[in-house]
Formats: sequence, C-alpha cells, structure tokens
Amino acid sequence: MNALQQLMDRIKPANQEAARQANEHLDQLTKPQGSLGKLEDIARQVAGITGEVMPTFEKKAVIVMAGDHGVCEEGISAFPAAVTPQMVLNFLYGGAAVNVLARHAGADVVCVDMGVNADLEHPNLVSRKVRKGTRNMAKEAALTLDETTQAILAGSEIVDDLVAKGYRLFATGEMGIGNTTASAAIVCALTGVDAELAVGRGTGIDDATWLHKQSVVNRALRVNGLLGRGLEVSASASAGDTLSAEYALEVMSKVGGLEIAGLVGVILGAAKHRCPVVVDGFISSTAALVASRLAPLSTSYMLASHLSQEQGHKKVLESVGLAAMLQMDMRLGEGTGAVLVFNLIDAAGKIMKEMATFESAGISRE
Amino acid sequence: MNALQQLMDRIKPANQEAARQANEHLDQLTKPQGSLGKLEDIARQVAGITGEVMPTFEKKAVIVMAGDHGVCEEGISAFPAAVTPQMVLNFLYGGAAVNVLARHAGADVVCVDMGVNADLEHPNLVSRKVRKGTRNMAKEAALTLDETTQAILAGSEIVDDLVAKGYRLFATGEMGIGNTTASAAIVCALTGVDAELAVGRGTGIDDATWLHKQSVVNRALRVNGLLGRGLEVSASASAGDTLSAEYALEVMSKVGGLEIAGLVGVILGAAKHRCPVVVDGFISSTAALVASRLAPLSTSYMLASHLSQEQGHKKVLESVGLAAMLQMDMRLGEGTGAVLVFNLIDAAGKIMKEMATFESAGISRE
Repeated sequence: MNALQQLMDRIKPANQEAARQANEHLDQLTKPQGSLGKLEDIARQVAGITGEVMPTFEKKAVIVMAGDHGVCEEGISAFPAAVTPQMVLNFLYGGAAVNVLARHAGADVVCVDMGVNADLEHPNLVSRKVRKGTRNMAKEAALTLDETTQAILAGSEIVDDLVAKGYRLFATGEMGIGNTTASAAIVCALTGVDAELAVGRGTGIDDATWLHKQSVVNRALRVNGLLGRGLEVSASASAGDTLSAEYALEVMSKVGGLEIAGLVGVILGAAKHRCPVVVDGFISSTAALVASRLAPLSTSYMLASHLSQEQGHKKVLESVGLAAMLQMDMRLGEGTGAVLVFNLIDAAGKIMKEMATFESAGISRE
Repeated sequence: MNALQQLMDRIKPANQEAARQANEHLDQLTKPQGSLGKLEDIARQVAGITGEVMPTFEKKAVIVMAGDHGVCEEGISAFPAAVTPQMVLNFLYGGAAVNVLARHAGADVVCVDMGVNADLEHPNLVSRKVRKGTRNMAKEAALTLDETTQAILAGSEIVDDLVAKGYRLFATGEMGIGNTTASAAIVCALTGVDAELAVGRGTGIDDATWLHKQSVVNRALRVNGLLGRGLEVSASASAGDTLSAEYALEVMSKVGGLEIAGLVGVILGAAKHRCPVVVDGFISSTAALVASRLAPLSTSYMLASHLSQEQGHKKVLESVGLAAMLQMDMRLGEGTGAVLVFNLIDAAGKIMKEMATFESAGISRE
C-alpha cells in the first residue's frame, strides 16, 4: 500500500495555463468559436495534460492486459476460458482486431500477461503474471489485497518503461473471458446500481445466461460483503476522502480481475507521467472508475473513446465524468475502440497547428 | 428534368451478394460475431456498394460546395454574408478546418462555387455558378426549377469528372452563410416538423435571433405555399411515388440553396457510379434527404458521419434512415465531420483484409 500511496500522491492537477493558451489559440482559428466540439476539447485537454500548447505524440501504445477469471466455472460466458490464452497468442502474432486497428493508427500493441491461466511464452509478451487467474468471486474473494496492489503497481511500472522508451500517448485494452462479469460486480459495488443494469451480454450470451450472470454477480457481492454498500460509499466519494480509496481497493480485490487491476495501474501511471490515456469500453472504463476513486485527479488525464453496446458502460462513463466520442455499437474490448480515437487526437493536434487564423486569412468576425 | 430523370434512373440497388460474402468473411474473424458493430456495417455496405468484397479506396475527395442566400437580408446569421467568399478563398489556400482534416485523412478538397455572391477566381476553384446567390425565400421562390435542376446536374457532373480521375470515395461539405436557415425550411417542408424543431443556432446566434430565424422559416414556407404540406407528402413518400420526387424538387427550388442542390447532385452522382458517399452534418444531411426523395435507392450509397449540435440534424438522419458514428458536438459544416469518417472506412477495410480467422489462429468457438 505504501508504494501505491506514493503513486497516487504523485498525480498532480493538469496545467490550467496551458489549457487556457490552447483555448485562446482555438478562438483565433477560422471557425465559429467552439464549432469543432470535442476536437477542441481534446486540444485543450492534452495541452493541460502535457503542459504544452501543441504537443505531438509520436510513439503511441495500446496496452492490452490479459487475465483469467475463477468465476468462469459458474458458466457466465459464451466462450470457454481457453480462449483467453488463445487470444493472447493472436495478439502476439498480430492477427486480432486490436492489432489491425493499432497498426492503422500508427500505434504499438503491448501485450501483458497479468494472470492468464496458462504458461505463455513469446519474445514480445510482457509477463507480469500475479497468479493463474482469480479465485471464483462467487465463493470467495477473487484476490488478496496484496495481489491487487501488486497488479496495479505492475501496470504503472509498464507505463514507466514505455515512457522511458519515448511513448507519450496510451490506450487501455483487455482480454479475459469472464471479465464483463467481474466488471459488472465492481460497478455495482462502487456505484450502487443493480446487477440488472450493470450486467450485459458480454461476448454474446442468451437471456437465460444473462439472468444467471446477474445472480452470480449478486452472489459475489453478498459472499464478499459488498451488497448495498455502493451507494453509501459513492456518496462520500464525491468528498474525495480516503475511505473511498480504501473501499475501491477492497472492491477491486474481492470481485476484481488481474487485468482490470493492471489497467488501473496503467491509468494512474499515465497520469503520473502527465500522458493522456484513452479508455476503451466497459471493462477499461471500470478500471478508470476504480482509478478515479483511488486518485480523483487522474480523471483529468483520461479520454473516453466509444460508447459500447455493453449495457453498463454508459453508467460507468457518467460516474467517471467522461463523454464518449464514437458511437460504433462495438463490444469487443481489446482496446479496439480506444485506438480508433488516436486518429481524433492526431486530428485535433493538426487543427491546432495547421488552421489559418481570422487575421491570417482576412475573414470577417461575427 | 429529362437529364435529371435519367440520372435518377441510373441508380441501381446495391449488390446483395457482395454484401453477403463480406458478412460471411466477417463471421470467420477472431471476434464474437457482430462485436465490431458499425465497422462491420461499413464493411458490408461498401461491399454492396462497389460489388467488391474487399474494396480499396485510394483516391478520396470531399466536395465542398459554396453558395450564398438571399434570405441573409432578414438578419438570420451571426456572420455577415461576406464570409462565404472569404471562406472559399480559405479553402483554396488550404487553411480551413476541412483542409486540415482532409489532408489528415489522405483526401483531396474539391472546392466548388455553386452560387457565391462574388466574382471568384482561382486555378483550383471549380466554377459552376448558377447565379450569384439565391433570391430571398422569405419574399419569393429562392430558385427556379431550371436553376435547381442545373445545380443538381452540375453536382453529378463533378462526380463524373472525379470518377474519371480515379476517385471512388466521396464526402459532402458546404459553405454558405444562411444555409442552416434554408436547410431548416427544406426539412420542415419535407418532413412536416415545426420550425421550432428544425431551426438551430447555426454558427452561434442568440435566443432572440433564433426566434426570429424560426419566424423567417415559417414566412418562407407560407410565401412559397409549402406550409403544412410536409406531413401529407411525407406519408406518400414511403410509397416511393413520383409525386414525392416532384415535391422534393419543388421544395428544393422554393426554399433551397445552390450549394445544397449541388450536393444532392453529388450524392446522386456517387450512387450512380456505385461509390460510397459520406454525408456531413445538418446541411449535407438535408441534401441527402432530398436525394432520398428523388431516388430512394440512393440511400444505400450514403454513410452518415457525425451527429452535429445543430438541433434538426437528428430528425433529418432518422428521416433518411442513417445512423451517425461520431458524436463530437461539432457544428461547423464544410465536410469536417464527414472526412473524419474516412479513417473509419479505411479501418473497416483493414479489418476485412488483415484480421486472422478462428481457423488460422486456432481459437475455440463459442
């Protein structure tokens, strides 16, 4: 907890002056003020994050973290757990959707084994395995506090390494059969919503499995003493007290996942290094929610990407205070929605650098 | 009307077999079926449009059409009409937002003078000026039927020329102080909604001007004998009869604009050549609505881009049957939202070409 507290303490507010200067420049450009909407928001935000009015992001990475989930033995997914290691190999061989979209965005895929239930080896695999999958949260705590902290710190250290290599822009991605179930439990425990609202269809389950998945989430919350505590702590969270941080860590341990905890670390690490981090869909956003409870200042460093089809996603984004830019009805995870937003960040940067001003173009003002 | 009828008649249904083959391929890729949402929709749609399962779009163009509006003398815009020719020059010198975003997307900007109220000359300007701005629709018909037809055919001919040069993917853009007012009037006349719903803030007007803009739209509808006819004809439009096409042309003339009519021609021309055309915000979508009434089959060739902040936009997209992919709170026009979607079309193409299949990657099925 000491190292984690240090990490949290090193996250500082964004640079308001740089954001103000970016805004001043935007208002000189040949367009009605504010008419480029979220492209302008991005420009202001990345200025505030980096402290540079017109930052460039040459090296970008999507960090795809994988982990298995003990709760899969309850039969909550359309796919067998064996798919987690199979997909990790697919990431490493470059054949998954996130590989294609990352190449398209000029970004690298960093694939991390946080807790896959298989022995995986590959020269490009970053191995930070805490344990071979979580315990079954429907029967006991998924992780110990130590395991959770270890996973969060591993995520942050991966960002340290990438920043040392020159990466300055990150996206979060994940793979883990069963992780929409864990995420739904986290969202229920942290926001107080009912399982019926937080539980979605994941990779594509039928009605009966969907109802079963809800009851498994409720069982996990009950077994772990989290049922009904979400709303109460959520109310105090707005005060940003340490109770909220401690509770978030407890939730992350009892009903979390190793790849989700790793992504919490990635987000906190990016914030510490004053780098923007683009948050993918439901599971990544759940990690962002936990990060926001651990270190409220970290939200200034987050950009949402898309609104996924996973039904709890909207609620999670609202809780963190993020607004999605893409509405693509995607529900794949892996970071696929987040890497699509790299293009919009590049576009916002070019708007700042390349557009003419009213003065330079000789255009009348309103 | 004869040449226009010929154009309309040359638009054929999309190729269902190519779309089916694209879908079959998508379902072999290493992801839950349908989990890439609208990226998969794009892949199926462009296959149907082009007849190729995996088409490539090397040369892309955003066609930015400009025109002035007589209704500006009613004081409905935050900017003076002089801004139209000034912005056209900005497009030609490459300093406007659409230039920046088009370069970013690897697309060319084709700037067309459809009816700017100024003498413009530039080697890169495509001059198809029908007249120097429309007449004031609040007092009389904005255009004659002949002028409207001429503008539509000009748009289609520009696409002919671009296709001859190898362009296969298009986006629509526009510039014209006053053209949200004309678009709102068209939308009221074609869909039957009240001016209160169709009239937006344009480049940024205050409450008083907004109310005034609504009353100007209502006056234009009354003066031109269009008030209350929208709903009635809208009901018969679903039957796809020629009454609907004739009425659309009448509306386009009486309360339309030359750049809007030109864009109708661009959309019909793209459909004729079996090329995808990405529709920008409120004004471009209004052109798409008119195109859909003239030639209902043309909708298969349209892709929506973003949901703009202009309040009538949602209604127009629904009327045409299009779903926006970006939610960027943009309200600039010029084609800025549409060119951002070129990146998503490229991404969808790479998903089709580069992703591994379940079989090639050795991954278990659900």
